[in-house]
Amino acid sequence: MPTYKAPLREYRFLLKDVLDIDRFSNLPGFSDAPLDVVEQILEEGAKFCEGVLAPLNKVGDEHGCKRRDDGSVTTPPGFKEAYKQFVDAGWPALSCDPAYGGQGMPHLVALAWNEMVASANMAWGMYPGLSHGAYEAIHQHGSDELKKRYLPKLVTGEWTGTMNLTEPHAGTDVGMLRTKAIPQGDGTYRVTGQKIFISAGEHDFAENIIHLVIARIEGAPAGTKGISLFIVPKFLVNDDGSLGKRNGVVCGKIEEKMGIHGNSTCVLNYDDAVGYLCGVENKGLAAMFTMMNVARLGVGLQGLSQSEVSYQNAVAYAKDRLQGRSLTGKKNPDGPADPIVVHPDIRRMLMDAKAFNEAARAFAFWTALYGDLLHSSPDEKVREKADDYMALMTPVIKSFLTDGGYKNATNAQQVYGGHGYIEEQGMSQFVRDARITMIYEGANGIQALDLVGRKLGANSGRAVFSFFNEIDEFAHANEDSAELKPFVEGLKTAKAQLQDGAMWLMQNGMSNFDNAGAASHDFLDLFGVTALTYMWALMAKAALTAKANGGGSDPFYDTKLATGRYFLARVLPEAGAHLAKLKSGAEPVMALAAEQF
Amino acid sequence: MPTYKAPLREYRFLLKDVLDIDRFSNLPGFSDAPLDVVEQILEEGAKFCEGVLAPLNKVGDEHGCKRRDDGSVTTPPGFKEAYKQFVDAGWPALSCDPAYGGQGMPHLVALAWNEMVASANMAWGMYPGLSHGAYEAIHQHGSDELKKRYLPKLVTGEWTGTMNLTEPHAGTDVGMLRTKAIPQGDGTYRVTGQKIFISAGEHDFAENIIHLVIARIEGAPAGTKGISLFIVPKFLVNDDGSLGKRNGVVCGKIEEKMGIHGNSTCVLNYDDAVGYLCGVENKGLAAMFTMMNVARLGVGLQGLSQSEVSYQNAVAYAKDRLQGRSLTGKKNPDGPADPIVVHPDIRRMLMDAKAFNEAARAFAFWTALYGDLLHSSPDEKVREKADDYMALMTPVIKSFLTDGGYKNATNAQQVYGGHGYIEEQGMSQFVRDARITMIYEGANGIQALDLVGRKLGANSGRAVFSFFNEIDEFAHANEDSAELKPFVEGLKTAKAQLQDGAMWLMQNGMSNFDNAGAASHDFLDLFGVTALTYMWALMAKAALTAKANGGGSDPFYDTKLATGRYFLARVLPEAGAHLAKLKSGAEPVMALAAEQF
Repeated sequence: MPTYKAPLREYRFLLKDVLDIDRFSNLPGFSDAPLDVVEQILEEGAKFCEGVLAPLNKVGDEHGCKRRDDGSVTTPPGFKEAYKQFVDAGWPALSCDPAYGGQGMPHLVALAWNEMVASANMAWGMYPGLSHGAYEAIHQHGSDELKKRYLPKLVTGEWTGTMNLTEPHAGTDVGMLRTKAIPQGDGTYRVTGQKIFISAGEHDFAENIIHLVIARIEGAPAGTKGISLFIVPKFLVNDDGSLGKRNGVVCGKIEEKMGIHGNSTCVLNYDDAVGYLCGVENKGLAAMFTMMNVARLGVGLQGLSQSEVSYQNAVAYAKDRLQGRSLTGKKNPDGPADPIVVHPDIRRMLMDAKAFNEAARAFAFWTALYGDLLHSSPDEKVREKADDYMALMTPVIKSFLTDGGYKNATNAQQVYGGHGYIEEQGMSQFVRDARITMIYEGANGIQALDLVGRKLGANSGRAVFSFFNEIDEFAHANEDSAELKPFVEGLKTAKAQLQDGAMWLMQNGMSNFDNAGAASHDFLDLFGVTALTYMWALMAKAALTAKANGGGSDPFYDTKLATGRYFLARVLPEAGAHLAKLKSGAEPVMALAAEQF
Repeated sequence: MPTYKAPLREYRFLLKDVLDIDRFSNLPGFSDAPLDVVEQILEEGAKFCEGVLAPLNKVGDEHGCKRRDDGSVTTPPGFKEAYKQFVDAGWPALSCDPAYGGQGMPHLVALAWNEMVASANMAWGMYPGLSHGAYEAIHQHGSDELKKRYLPKLVTGEWTGTMNLTEPHAGTDVGMLRTKAIPQGDGTYRVTGQKIFISAGEHDFAENIIHLVIARIEGAPAGTKGISLFIVPKFLVNDDGSLGKRNGVVCGKIEEKMGIHGNSTCVLNYDDAVGYLCGVENKGLAAMFTMMNVARLGVGLQGLSQSEVSYQNAVAYAKDRLQGRSLTGKKNPDGPADPIVVHPDIRRMLMDAKAFNEAARAFAFWTALYGDLLHSSPDEKVREKADDYMALMTPVIKSFLTDGGYKNATNAQQVYGGHGYIEEQGMSQFVRDARITMIYEGANGIQALDLVGRKLGANSGRAVFSFFNEIDEFAHANEDSAELKPFVEGLKTAKAQLQDGAMWLMQNGMSNFDNAGAASHDFLDLFGVTALTYMWALMAKAALTAKANGGGSDPFYDTKLATGRYFLARVLPEAGAHLAKLKSGAEPVMALAAEQF
């Protein structure tokens, strides 16, 4: 059975050597989170993830969730008990607002925690993950009354939450939704309609479930301009906080999916359910995006998590499995064969994953730090840049980390050979679970379109130019370092290609929007490769600095540098292919009429 | 539920316009297979695949195979009946030797038939697929007596066959096998051991199963030099051809796999089972490769098949699913939204698959034609070239077509969005089924090593230089055609990069074998891109010729040319990335000690 070991050493390197979070100790959140405290938190979290959640991962895959005739849902054996432990330990409160019982830790810390949870048990992690999305939506858009009524129990984890967007005929195109909300004259609404693909939609973890539901108020405009966001609790909540009567929302079905069997993906039927408007009438789309953006970073992290955990198991297998001999002479002469880790093509797959995981994690952390600065920095310029970066990087993280996660999970399965195809080994689950991350919270094609259509040109390209400047400054400041030279050169190459692609888009995307659409996927991948090259440059510099400052005897830093050099040699060349593809424009992509397919 | 439509128009184009098979009508096999006869056969086959096999594909996935306590196995509902229809229609005999009841059709025809079967129902197709592998092994290596005893009923399909190579501790490294064969002094052997991952190992289709088993004769050398091939029938066969007593081979378990649930993947326990030596003592590895090479082309075709069928369904969904509006103005103004086929990123995924499928099919057919010429040409030079090409192209077809098949099946699933992740839709099955093709019959990493380590340098590189010359001649002969110019230019680019890679390997692979191993994957992919570029050049020329010869009004040819141009714009750029990666050599790949992972 697969195992999981939290990458605590990697977290320490990122938080201390690369991001140096203690320099923000004057800011809210960070002031309560000096590095040593954060490390203690993550160590505790690691124990829970490794010891409690990871052993339940395969259990969840095998048992799945069961719906009974009354619409109630039983989660896999052990899931409910693990959730109780999680609540008892106070984990749901980690990064929540102290005004509602939260611990107020930086999002950066929650990010590391979320990665560990998703690596250990992605399907389980979606229950609290969705709850946090609901928390964020209410926290940002709800009235004080709604916040007081719903947030404290979401923060403790006594209640969970969900996001209800999709309908059978309205997926990406949420404007086509049919769920109706009828005002009752007393400030409440009655919500009727069907939502599908609702993760954690019904379960046996908690006494109440707070559904966040988008619907159209009777008479509101068609399309996305008439969407409002509602809170629809499974049980109504009395003024004293006690639970009232059962609301008109029932799980009609659990979907049979390719993976994440441990999560209940529900069809939810709303029938005259009592709902409370969250935020402003007809401004539900913006509120929805609050949930979506938090969720998109989380989904990117899920992609990384499956890459990480499948990589760890592939490494263990590659060291253990004896098969064939090294091309350069026996490495295990006393054994019947060498461990397969001696074979270069096995190495290639492991190094691809390692070089990806470490830089992808850095990218997510680096971005999440801006997420914290956006809320806590007193400097308006910093907040502006943070806002720009969050907007720009979110679709890249969502898409690039999930495509990469699936690819690496597939390669990790490949390392196992035929045994990887047998469910007993658990490697298939990583692939099947990872697969959803490319689809939900906005399919990756939508992320690419968001990047080129909305984020790239926003404020005349301010965000991307800021990113280019940052890279130029780094390259300029470090061009004299012989040890950093390959990283600086690689970074210059990547950035020049990304800039070339961005310029091509600015020149050609406006004159023919299909050029932007046709280029979007490769532009996003080019952006991802460039961002990860930058992360490798930052990490190489941090490793060299740490080595010089007394860390020279720690092999961690040399491993880091060698892994970075692998990235430059073996991943960076993909940038050129992406650039060439995107610059070929829409014509070849759109040449056929629909009937020619 | 997914459907399948056999690409008969594509077959016609390849057999007539590209390969012009009627020019071989003077050769054995081809003389009985003029184009119109072949087309009739394929039309009949298409009806069976579309109407009988395809509707059973999902049934097989859902039901799987059930083993009873006595070791007998029940296949999914309808599978057995479909097999009876298949046998009654004489399909197993299609390309078999007329001396044993076969129809003697060219392998090229069998290839098209096999693609249709695998597209319609890959798990089902493996039963006759494995039988044909057993047929080939006995036909090539068995004594006349063995051939007379076993081939006729394999040819009719009354019996099926299997290949037994893998053991728990001997996968890729077959030399580590432990299965023993003890000579009985009467020419027979007793075989004892355990084989795993035996596809079609036990079932209810046929009255007998002929297992081809590799084992070590007592006292034979260790490693691959002591492997012999045995025929071990499930029921012994009496001299009069009637069935005798049950032999000592029993299905001990059916594996739970990620996909191909309709095929029984068995653990087979051999306990003092009577076996008959097939071929020469201790030369079992060569005989095994007879089966493997046939099987590897078949597996490459399975990769293509899943790409094709998933593509067909994604196209249908993309035309039907209304979601969002075209970036360049409404295309379905009277509907609530446009069909998603208007979106460039949906197009990208469909075009990637279409451009791959058509060229991959051409590559398989073009190679299979050499397989026929190898056996039927009276010209020694032609046979030598055919032998060279078969050896050189087989690992490329196996690996490149299966990696591509998985990628395209994944993209086809992506076109469905969230619905693609729901098992009900059937798209997940294509991905899960396609996944095994990258693993079995030699994992794709082994194919790459076979290509660079064995095939590339064989006879001082004669095969690959012959391929380069052929491309040069094509480019030279067609450089004056304005319409072909982009294809000729693309081909020159690809070929120059492949040659560069081959030269790098010849210079660096011998001095450090790890350079060859580290480069192998990207070299194979570079080879695949180049081969498909060549196929597109051949197809473009054939399409232009057909247009000029009265086919101008058939939109098929313009579609073909546009699809080829897409390949040049959007796939060919990958060649440069592969070249850059492979030329970075072993150092970055092998830099870490095992404990640094």
